[in-house]
Amino acid sequence: MPHRIAAIQKLTATEPHPERVAMFAIAGDSASGKTTLTKGLVEAIGTHRISSFCTDDYHRYDRKERKNLPFTPLNPECNYLEIMEQHLQLLILGQPILKPKYHHADGTLGRPELFIPSEIVIVEGLFPLWSKLSRATFDVTAYLDPPETVRRAWKIARDTTKRGYTTEQVLSDLEQREPESEKYIRPQRAHADLVISFAPVEGRSSLSATILLRPTVPQPDLHDILTPATRDAAHIKLIRDQDGKPVDALHIHGHAPEAASRLVEEKLWEKIGLGGDIPASLGRISSTERSAPLAIAQLIILHHMIHC
Amino acid sequence: MPHRIAAIQKLTATEPHPERVAMFAIAGDSASGKTTLTKGLVEAIGTHRISSFCTDDYHRYDRKERKNLPFTPLNPECNYLEIMEQHLQLLILGQPILKPKYHHADGTLGRPELFIPSEIVIVEGLFPLWSKLSRATFDVTAYLDPPETVRRAWKIARDTTKRGYTTEQVLSDLEQREPESEKYIRPQRAHADLVISFAPVEGRSSLSATILLRPTVPQPDLHDILTPATRDAAHIKLIRDQDGKPVDALHIHGHAPEAASRLVEEKLWEKIGLGGDIPASLGRISSTERSAPLAIAQLIILHHMIHC
Repeated sequence: MPHRIAAIQKLTATEPHPERVAMFAIAGDSASGKTTLTKGLVEAIGTHRISSFCTDDYHRYDRKERKNLPFTPLNPECNYLEIMEQHLQLLILGQPILKPKYHHADGTLGRPELFIPSEIVIVEGLFPLWSKLSRATFDVTAYLDPPETVRRAWKIARDTTKRGYTTEQVLSDLEQREPESEKYIRPQRAHADLVISFAPVEGRSSLSATILLRPTVPQPDLHDILTPATRDAAHIKLIRDQDGKPVDALHIHGHAPEAASRLVEEKLWEKIGLGGDIPASLGRISSTERSAPLAIAQLIILHHMIHC
Repeated sequence: MPHRIAAIQKLTATEPHPERVAMFAIAGDSASGKTTLTKGLVEAIGTHRISSFCTDDYHRYDRKERKNLPFTPLNPECNYLEIMEQHLQLLILGQPILKPKYHHADGTLGRPELFIPSEIVIVEGLFPLWSKLSRATFDVTAYLDPPETVRRAWKIARDTTKRGYTTEQVLSDLEQREPESEKYIRPQRAHADLVISFAPVEGRSSLSATILLRPTVPQPDLHDILTPATRDAAHIKLIRDQDGKPVDALHIHGHAPEAASRLVEEKLWEKIGLGGDIPASLGRISSTERSAPLAIAQLIILHHMIHC
């Protein structure tokens, strides 16, 4: 009704201009490291400046209902993706949303929660890069792309300790999800500005990382960071992406001497320009484990967040 | 971010133009008859053309949480009214919403529900006429205004049978709510196009109705319905409203001969122009009780819905 829409525009036009909301997507399959990466970033910057949610909250069915359905949560049919797109559009306008809530611990859908966008919003999950419309709402996008062997190990470790599944259930789940992962999740890799893969280098237990820095957005200038002094920790190489397109691949060595990795971190932190020390949450895998490649990946993302 | 908003407008502009959604508000205090009136209308037209929801769904706290709070559900603070306004704006654009859900039976907040607007949407509850913005989303608005004695009797009857309260709890609740009813609910009466009051006439048990037909919207032309043949069932009188403004008051006599009331109903139904018989759901109070004044009030609203 044009006259009512005009009346509403008149009423809302007097509201103060919404603050700029910088939006970041971290997409990837189940147990690809999205939450660990996001958590470190949120703690580093503080919830007064950065907030995040998971697109799993848009699940249409709870765990019990899904048992009788012919698809897994990796199928768009299993999610309110139109509502997710609507909410993303509201967030970039600085508007609050009443976000649905999926509880991973017991697989239930709970009461919705008010989500007020802060200056920086991270949307992580299976579907942030699903559609042209959802992608248009983000400033910078990342896709987590660990090798399947690594992801499977992570998924078993997490789902059997935090989500109440047995190892057999997780393995059966992985098998059941594979066709939908191929069809709906992995194609999102093509639409990310950063593709991040944590993987062990042969013969080493620590994880290294490869970050594809695609020319789809301005990437941080690393020429003054990747010097002979940091050569043992990281190097960049021009390669062809899976689809043949040219891309810069930043390799971060998990087995590097701590001093060299620390130098990369410090130079990146300085370039970001927030001052103070590098936040302790960056690189944190658990209360006892730290990964320099994770910290460096988070610092690259943080650079985008502050300078996009 | 203007460039992202432009990108989104480009993507959404190619969507088919949303169907026209006619929006109706039925506001009123707790137990003023909103649900009974709405239910009869929805059943009369069918859920394929008309859908409804209650603004109680936007309660911010569940019944247990409210016990420790210094306000009742009649306080705006106790509701997500900004989100309600946002959802009303989305509905008039024909967009679906993921609507919160309050369960009256046990006072809990449940998982949200997808609500896809049909051609006609009724929004009933405590707050639809709360703000300029919410009011701007409606085509026609009604306020249910029974005398307090009637409303109290209705509230006790309902809350002790359907909502698990004792009579003492309802009486205490009514007392506690009175200041907030005066401050937040009753002022909405001033913003309705129709003010409907069901009340017994002295010495009679059946309820009569008075409907104020305010000149804020085009009202149905009743001159060919209110004839000598229907004089026993209904008449109209020019009066001054509580605030002194001129208004037409339609009086519908609950004690009228059935034939006369039926004639008013039939002539109104004919004027609405949907064909067929008058739907049996109109005027229904319960499985055994029917009220001609309720049916006539519903037919007046229906006329607005079809011809607004």
